[in-house]
Amino acid sequence: MTRHELYIDDFSFEAGGRLPQVKVVYHTSEAKDGPVVWICHALTANSDPEDWWPEMVGPGKFFDTEKQRIVCVNMLASPYGSSSPASLDPSTGRPFFFDFPAVTVRDMVATMRAVRLALGIKKIDLLVGSSIGGFQAVEWAITEPDVFVNAAFIATAPRVSPWLSATMETQRMALEADPSFRAAESLAGGALGLRCARAQALVTYRCFEGYGLTQAEPDDDTLFASRAASYERYQGEKLVRRNFDAYCYHYLCNAVDSHNAGRGRGGVAAALGRIQANVLVASIDTDGIFLPSEIETWAPYIPGAVYKRLNSHFGHDGFLLETAQLIHILTPLLCKS
Amino acid sequence: MTRHELYIDDFSFEAGGRLPQVKVVYHTSEAKDGPVVWICHALTANSDPEDWWPEMVGPGKFFDTEKQRIVCVNMLASPYGSSSPASLDPSTGRPFFFDFPAVTVRDMVATMRAVRLALGIKKIDLLVGSSIGGFQAVEWAITEPDVFVNAAFIATAPRVSPWLSATMETQRMALEADPSFRAAESLAGGALGLRCARAQALVTYRCFEGYGLTQAEPDDDTLFASRAASYERYQGEKLVRRNFDAYCYHYLCNAVDSHNAGRGRGGVAAALGRIQANVLVASIDTDGIFLPSEIETWAPYIPGAVYKRLNSHFGHDGFLLETAQLIHILTPLLCKS
Repeated sequence: MTRHELYIDDFSFEAGGRLPQVKVVYHTSEAKDGPVVWICHALTANSDPEDWWPEMVGPGKFFDTEKQRIVCVNMLASPYGSSSPASLDPSTGRPFFFDFPAVTVRDMVATMRAVRLALGIKKIDLLVGSSIGGFQAVEWAITEPDVFVNAAFIATAPRVSPWLSATMETQRMALEADPSFRAAESLAGGALGLRCARAQALVTYRCFEGYGLTQAEPDDDTLFASRAASYERYQGEKLVRRNFDAYCYHYLCNAVDSHNAGRGRGGVAAALGRIQANVLVASIDTDGIFLPSEIETWAPYIPGAVYKRLNSHFGHDGFLLETAQLIHILTPLLCKS
Repeated sequence: MTRHELYIDDFSFEAGGRLPQVKVVYHTSEAKDGPVVWICHALTANSDPEDWWPEMVGPGKFFDTEKQRIVCVNMLASPYGSSSPASLDPSTGRPFFFDFPAVTVRDMVATMRAVRLALGIKKIDLLVGSSIGGFQAVEWAITEPDVFVNAAFIATAPRVSPWLSATMETQRMALEADPSFRAAESLAGGALGLRCARAQALVTYRCFEGYGLTQAEPDDDTLFASRAASYERYQGEKLVRRNFDAYCYHYLCNAVDSHNAGRGRGGVAAALGRIQANVLVASIDTDGIFLPSEIETWAPYIPGAVYKRLNSHFGHDGFLLETAQLIHILTPLLCKS
């Protein structure tokens, strides 16, 4: 897929604040016709789904970059191109850090709408969002109900849950425990806190069973278990090494907390009732963030929504890993285009 | 209950290291006869179960301090009296910090055994341990099988799981992200990291459902969810205010990682097979740390063990909260004395 940039002038943020210009980075496939597939990415991913969803997106894959017009927008506040706390503030010549306006999921959707208009796309055959990508997808399907033919909301929710919000806070607390974060002198600030936040997040992305399968200690007489601990450190370190910064991470945690598709719309049920797309809602049986029991409470508010439950040993991360099951449930949506 | 101190000379730690003397703080009830009940406390509790288990322990309560000879030992590495990284190192006149020897669950059991011998107790009618208290109880029931008539292992395990070990690491990473912890200049060091670690722990102690019941946002048009976040901060702060220090916390996380009742005994199944007590094993349906499915795999290795599953909206913390159910399942064990 190919990287593009769109500049939006005079952008007003939902929570207040305004910038004379925001940059929006997005990727598109080479195909000029075929169904339009719009993919919304999750918390630490980017606008190139071939990079983070390689089993699903690429030439000859289910999301076929040669036959489908695929679009993915890097969300605001992500460090991967779109405007964020890591962007240079033209008025100071240094990163915005905490001077960047607070970002909400609705701000992200506003940038996606701008990209859609810039590309001249009137109908989107399939909107797909998992996890925080699903936050954007749900919000957008409500905001512009007549744009979408089909939509898939996978391992996600129409509103942040108290439990997820609690985990966002513990992750912010890790960043804030690192004084180099608070100093806001360099984008490397808060790296130790960010490692910890990512490691915490991973525990919520996977599940008890998955750790048991992949991180079991060898059955020897070692005094202190260390394998799962090494994995946590490795994963924390890995996020820092791929140039994720603590400031963007903090803003994205806040954006998660902003998610409430029912805000100003008479609540979640009423908001979901506005959706016109053919919707598939999917949960993952071991998902500890978006529990099937929770998803089953709101999915019925979407008119005509079909609900499927996937099986995975890997908790929430099943949305990235359970390729065969994803293809199985998504196939009818592409056929309906 | 009354506080006592025992000094053990020339104490060798399982993982290496030796101290000329360790102090062990413990509480006993006033009753001089009646059944002997030994309670093992969990990670951040102390040796006074009337303080942290008030619904269950006290005059006229199920664990009746007037009619039962109740004992509880403060575990090594806890800041609540027994020797720990916060104790003064006589050779330097300042706290041990990282110079304190690493502590294992077996070291804790060694101190409990010493208290038992000092008190002249030959038979313990009921040994009770929940969570990390259960680690000690399981280990002790294996180490001295002929001492215990009955034992209850609640929301616990014979070995740390990879998932629990992962969460111990993320909590240590929070402490380590705070440079005042690494500096080891004052016991107040690492307070910001400790707040974060405790907040993280709380997310694992409770569950999705419990947060939904107690920390739901008001249904208004607030932009950013904040109620669960405030709760996290409050709970983190609360641990710091009750004089828990980051050094003891770090050591206790390591002690959790040391737990493997099968070490040097041919594995967990063989070790559990040594237990002679009448054992009750209990899980909690919403427990995300010690899953019923996990507990059901090892409970059968204990000869004749009875297994019960409690219901709670509050996850692992159900072991402190579900008083009526606990009394119901524990009653037969006191009658068997």
